[in-house]
Amino acid sequence: MQQSSSAGNLADTLRRDLRHYSEGEKLPSNRALMERYQVSPVTVSRAIAVLVAEGAVTSRPGAGVFRVVPHAGPEPSGDVSWQEVALSAGSGSGSDSGPAAGSPRGPDASGLLATLATPPLDVIDLNGGYLHPSLQPERALAGALARAGRRPGTWDRPPVEGIADLRAWFARDIAGADGALAGADVLITAGGQSALTTALRSLTAPGAAVLVESPTYPGTLAVARAAGLRPVPVPVDADGVRTDLLEEAIHATRARVFVCQPLFQNPTGTTLSPERRLEVLRIARAAGAFVVEDDFARRLAHAGSSPLPQPLAAQDPDGVVVHIRSLTKATSPNLRVGALTARGPAMERLRASQVVDSFFVPRPLQETALELVGSPAWRSHLRALADTLRSRRDAMVTALRQELPDLLGERIPQGGYHLWLRLPAGADERALAATALRAGVAVTPGRPYFAAEPPAPYLRLSYISAANTDQLREGIRQLRRTIAEVCH
Amino acid sequence: MQQSSSAGNLADTLRRDLRHYSEGEKLPSNRALMERYQVSPVTVSRAIAVLVAEGAVTSRPGAGVFRVVPHAGPEPSGDVSWQEVALSAGSGSGSDSGPAAGSPRGPDASGLLATLATPPLDVIDLNGGYLHPSLQPERALAGALARAGRRPGTWDRPPVEGIADLRAWFARDIAGADGALAGADVLITAGGQSALTTALRSLTAPGAAVLVESPTYPGTLAVARAAGLRPVPVPVDADGVRTDLLEEAIHATRARVFVCQPLFQNPTGTTLSPERRLEVLRIARAAGAFVVEDDFARRLAHAGSSPLPQPLAAQDPDGVVVHIRSLTKATSPNLRVGALTARGPAMERLRASQVVDSFFVPRPLQETALELVGSPAWRSHLRALADTLRSRRDAMVTALRQELPDLLGERIPQGGYHLWLRLPAGADERALAATALRAGVAVTPGRPYFAAEPPAPYLRLSYISAANTDQLREGIRQLRRTIAEVCH
Repeated sequence: MQQSSSAGNLADTLRRDLRHYSEGEKLPSNRALMERYQVSPVTVSRAIAVLVAEGAVTSRPGAGVFRVVPHAGPEPSGDVSWQEVALSAGSGSGSDSGPAAGSPRGPDASGLLATLATPPLDVIDLNGGYLHPSLQPERALAGALARAGRRPGTWDRPPVEGIADLRAWFARDIAGADGALAGADVLITAGGQSALTTALRSLTAPGAAVLVESPTYPGTLAVARAAGLRPVPVPVDADGVRTDLLEEAIHATRARVFVCQPLFQNPTGTTLSPERRLEVLRIARAAGAFVVEDDFARRLAHAGSSPLPQPLAAQDPDGVVVHIRSLTKATSPNLRVGALTARGPAMERLRASQVVDSFFVPRPLQETALELVGSPAWRSHLRALADTLRSRRDAMVTALRQELPDLLGERIPQGGYHLWLRLPAGADERALAATALRAGVAVTPGRPYFAAEPPAPYLRLSYISAANTDQLREGIRQLRRTIAEVCH
Repeated sequence: MQQSSSAGNLADTLRRDLRHYSEGEKLPSNRALMERYQVSPVTVSRAIAVLVAEGAVTSRPGAGVFRVVPHAGPEPSGDVSWQEVALSAGSGSGSDSGPAAGSPRGPDASGLLATLATPPLDVIDLNGGYLHPSLQPERALAGALARAGRRPGTWDRPPVEGIADLRAWFARDIAGADGALAGADVLITAGGQSALTTALRSLTAPGAAVLVESPTYPGTLAVARAAGLRPVPVPVDADGVRTDLLEEAIHATRARVFVCQPLFQNPTGTTLSPERRLEVLRIARAAGAFVVEDDFARRLAHAGSSPLPQPLAAQDPDGVVVHIRSLTKATSPNLRVGALTARGPAMERLRASQVVDSFFVPRPLQETALELVGSPAWRSHLRALADTLRSRRDAMVTALRQELPDLLGERIPQGGYHLWLRLPAGADERALAATALRAGVAVTPGRPYFAAEPPAPYLRLSYISAANTDQLREGIRQLRRTIAEVCH
């Protein structure tokens, strides 16, 4: 580490100094550089290698190292304003198709970027969708990566569908050891978001309607819109999606896809009731539609929660369900390894779509995932995480009961990582979030969770992205002060 | 390694044996398992951990390990044939848009899957687009991965655009140390194919035309079609794309994007002439269109080749060029790390599109790439690769001159990894490829490289995917016999 960093520092220094050399001028000898900068010969040769790689110097064995002046291109004083026109153009009047389904203004990533952004260090983060670094199994990940790196064949080209052992593991993890899924029903993806993109892009055609829960994860809305789809919201109540409205919507829109999160739904935290599970499957089957089951929170069940219902994919004889599972949420945003399952010809469609988009998931990451889930550290991490999630949820709920009792709903989620607060009618959630951020607390406004106009203002509060429970309590206290300031 | 593999084997054995246990029945003690299977205590606990992770057994500390029988779902005896209807449906008659631009039959990955497939071991591979494993810098990659794994912060969430040092390295690598690009103009992507997907999806709208070279890389055609675009071919001659026809096509179609490979074009191997470089930039600028420069072969220049022209991106004051660079071709198919560059507002569009599709590239891979290109092994690998590419090309050209002199074109490429052979009129390239494969040689038919009807039958022969030059020679001899058999 030390060496690599010294070499980087030396390369930075030399790069600056190069300005004082003319084209073709010789640099001091390695020995001279060692003495001048008090570094080892290894550091000097690494730094030179960096500059050679950059094309800033050239090395002629036996002769020395010489400055290279790159051919000067035209000055970057040009005019890029034409791009505004190009980027606003739709499908072009020269096109032979009808009105373009895709938005000519590009995908709306604002909702996602807001939750992917890392807030400043002094801000209490009640906004993020990933585990705080202190909750991530960093040692287990490092160990898994190191073991994966030593496996023979780790750099061999993987099958485009993913490596067989990992596909088999996901099949068992999702549907049980003797369950309805085999490894062949699993496509390894680069995390949950990629899986959602592949599922929506391949099971629909631009211009179609796609049914989504309301409220729902903004990433689902963004993927649907980027694919040129029309998201149609179906309201969620305390038992999950309203199946009476689902049935109406599926007939009214002839949608072929319904996206749902039956377990600890984001943002409401609700779990689909047993009766409605069967209804969802029946309605989809009768309409000839797919249910994309985004099972993002399976590994975020809290200690002491009721036994979890099986995934819909485990109850699905006719291949209605396309299931999404990812390792990211319970580990690290960087372990972007997930699974997309399908039974029947849909799998071939998903596979072809992913190959065209991005070929396949790098094997070293797949091997790392396999090492992690096969290690003793995996189960102990999940157990510790379940305990932590419970105590963090309890800390936030207790603080809310003290500070803002009116905002807390009746049902407290037993899994996931957030609470969903209904604000007083007329409250300006965006102003509130902006004021809270200035006061040192990042929270998530509810608007991006709705495909259409929301019925009320909301806030989502995450309890996994802050550093500790003290911060959760302090964040809620500050939020109360902010609400008092903004809403009155 | 040994332990991990033993644990895997033991887990497999125990998983089979579990069938003979009833629900809740206790497994033999760890000691008994150690003795029965002659393995270490570590192996036993790892194997048990695997089974616990799968949910096949449960471990109660102090009591033992017990079989779990998963809740039986419905028998997977259902009927998935309804999917055929769902997958053939277009955007739906309930949709409010016009005819769907996207193909209702799904993306065509056949051309890509053909070159991504690994042929059987006894087949000479003249078809693949990746370096044979013996040419990949496996030790340097393993070292880079190990160093990346030890870096503090390797599992920290990266900025969505990529880590700053890697963006800066790509900017210098593409446009030179004092060049037209800064790190802020670079978006780190999950390899070249993903970059192409992001560029085409974000700079166009479904239904639009996109101009492509003819012939061109099948992955470009597949991405364009999957995005609902209409690829319009512009012929290539010995000096690269025909700029007179490019100008006509850009006006006739009002396309906003032209995709090209100015260096060692795939499949023809041609390099855009200096005059035409300027013409391409002028035509695009005048039409308000982007040039997507797929610089896939920059690191595949052969030893002894003429000095390489700069990328178009280095000669681009007005931000016309969106440049694609990837580390994959010169290293390993698994180092799926690339760069997409743009100057001006287009960068924000590309960034938003990638965030919605897949969030970001895992940091451990980005750090591995940075370690690799900063290591002394990088330059020495590239030098050795340039030598190998030259000798492999020479071996194949020599063999073709002996065996099939009529098929070889006049210009022999100085970079890339393949030769492009025009077959006699009327030759059935697909029958030829199929017969050659049965005779033990994998070659690539030319058809997938054309957006429309091809002017003649072609074959593409890769010289990087076979094991050695002997295989190249043997492959050409066999190809001559196959051609004699099929074409006469």
